[in-house]
Amino acid sequence: MDPRVTALQKQAASRPDVIGLAGGLPALELLPREPLAAALAEVTASRDGALQYGWPEGTEALRAWIASRLATRGASVDPDRVIVTAGAQQALWIAARVLGGAIAVGDATYAAALDAFRRAGAEVVETGGTARYLIPGASNPHGVELVDRDEVLSSAGPLIVDEAYAELRFDGVTPRPLVADAPERVWHIGTISKTLAPGLRVGWLIPPAAHHDAALELKSACDLQTSGVSQAALARLLVTLDYDALLARARAAYASRAAALSDALHRHVPALRFREPAGGFSIWLETERTGDELELLAAALAAGVMVDPGFAFCPRARETIAIRASYSNLPEARLDEAARRLARVLG
Amino acid sequence: MDPRVTALQKQAASRPDVIGLAGGLPALELLPREPLAAALAEVTASRDGALQYGWPEGTEALRAWIASRLATRGASVDPDRVIVTAGAQQALWIAARVLGGAIAVGDATYAAALDAFRRAGAEVVETGGTARYLIPGASNPHGVELVDRDEVLSSAGPLIVDEAYAELRFDGVTPRPLVADAPERVWHIGTISKTLAPGLRVGWLIPPAAHHDAALELKSACDLQTSGVSQAALARLLVTLDYDALLARARAAYASRAAALSDALHRHVPALRFREPAGGFSIWLETERTGDELELLAAALAAGVMVDPGFAFCPRARETIAIRASYSNLPEARLDEAARRLARVLG
Repeated sequence: MDPRVTALQKQAASRPDVIGLAGGLPALELLPREPLAAALAEVTASRDGALQYGWPEGTEALRAWIASRLATRGASVDPDRVIVTAGAQQALWIAARVLGGAIAVGDATYAAALDAFRRAGAEVVETGGTARYLIPGASNPHGVELVDRDEVLSSAGPLIVDEAYAELRFDGVTPRPLVADAPERVWHIGTISKTLAPGLRVGWLIPPAAHHDAALELKSACDLQTSGVSQAALARLLVTLDYDALLARARAAYASRAAALSDALHRHVPALRFREPAGGFSIWLETERTGDELELLAAALAAGVMVDPGFAFCPRARETIAIRASYSNLPEARLDEAARRLARVLG
Repeated sequence: MDPRVTALQKQAASRPDVIGLAGGLPALELLPREPLAAALAEVTASRDGALQYGWPEGTEALRAWIASRLATRGASVDPDRVIVTAGAQQALWIAARVLGGAIAVGDATYAAALDAFRRAGAEVVETGGTARYLIPGASNPHGVELVDRDEVLSSAGPLIVDEAYAELRFDGVTPRPLVADAPERVWHIGTISKTLAPGLRVGWLIPPAAHHDAALELKSACDLQTSGVSQAALARLLVTLDYDALLARARAAYASRAAALSDALHRHVPALRFREPAGGFSIWLETERTGDELELLAAALAAGVMVDPGFAFCPRARETIAIRASYSNLPEARLDEAARRLARVLG
């Protein structure tokens, strides 16, 4: 992230009066805090080795859970092909570092993926490229399904498939994993950061079989292994937690917040056009205004609201101002006021 | 690590009859298991944000503790210059990726550092180079102090200083941090993996001020942040834990195990010459035999003992066989039998 943006966001975070629409944060109150606390204490107090060094690919128990979830969605993956990573972010980084080349991301995409790809030495392009990056279920930042399965499956070349929001479509439809139908070219990426706890830093990468060893050696060189404590606690938690019920609650809560922010924006900034969110955590607001997005952020901060600047999500320079507004970690009651404040700088 | 070595080590780990001298593992019984379990449960059950996303540099509380420990050892470092990493391994990787060039590591060094440096795009050389890698206190694998402070401080060029074993010298002497005297060229690296819990994956990097932003941006691109749960639990634990007392117990225990393995080796393999361990976790055994180290490992496994092969620690091909034998995670009673089994393949 641009350090000037970070500076503004840290100011915003330190001021309780500022309403934060920046960052794609899950709602803290939806995370299974008490069961996680119990699981962490149990696996740490036991002598099963959560505190000790482990293998770079991650624990058998967690890899088995990941494979079994995929199996229920139609993808048969050997748990030995799963690499547990430090969140989806590390999986994105590893995929780009092994693949290199030019990664096509569309007109706008997850800002930290752009960071990961570029710093891994890959180029980022809007279309074309030697590989594609996809966020099925609900694109970040757009908040709508942008993946056309038939088109994707009839195309050629490696696919970096980020399922961070695949199970967070408000209609409850979870797309069939692309790795089920194109295993030889899909780099499948998942995470528990949107549903269980980003602070555990657990995600996963299932590279195409031909790239498994290269990806695993890179993972090992980068940080040896993902937190054994996080992995053991998650595996323990997932034995008893009803993950599908948790997903259903999360979808309902985020759908409700999405509708609240959308309604408030229509009310307070009626000229603004945007796609109605259908999943994920955010609304992507493309305006017809020109100008400096950093100045807009500073003005927003002065008005008591913070958002993410559009340029961070775009593979090339924009002509008009855009912002990402994330409703995910705010109570509905605050979203009307957030839109009211945004209207002062966008209206 | 060479996948053939990994395959042998996984076989060894799955067989309770095999005595493991491979891997530099801290003794599980020396880790503060119960206090850590309590700290993990407390920070997770609270609403303080351990489960949520955090800033890439890590939490203020943990960075303050790291800076305060360095202050007591004579190094004044602003906590804002500390970057909390996923273990020392990620710090090594980031340093090498930012520095590039050729890193001088001596005749033998920590195997995973060689992995990190090479995969980060740096070259690894024995002497010369554009930067140097040092392990003050007790070198891994040698188990003795190899850093000549005066010589190092009178040299030029970047220094990657890995303090993993700096506080684990058996004589209780902790070297003054090199960052205290050469802050403009030291990449200071520390970790709690040898003393509190490798499974938490927490280490730190203090790059020279001129490289701080580049290192932090790379950290953020690689995995966004280090586990917030691990960081919060550590910070909580360190408020009440007497870390110096824990270090004193660890030094005494490892000194005792080191002496036990050394004595047993002298008894069972009297022809073997090696430096008496003075710190750290391992003894470095250089033999006069030639041959294939992988065959030696297979023979060792057949004899019921596992070690690390010398080639993994050396920047260039060896002519004679060497092995690293780690006594750190074995009760003394097993070390005599370990040496007896080693004698069958080294004798």
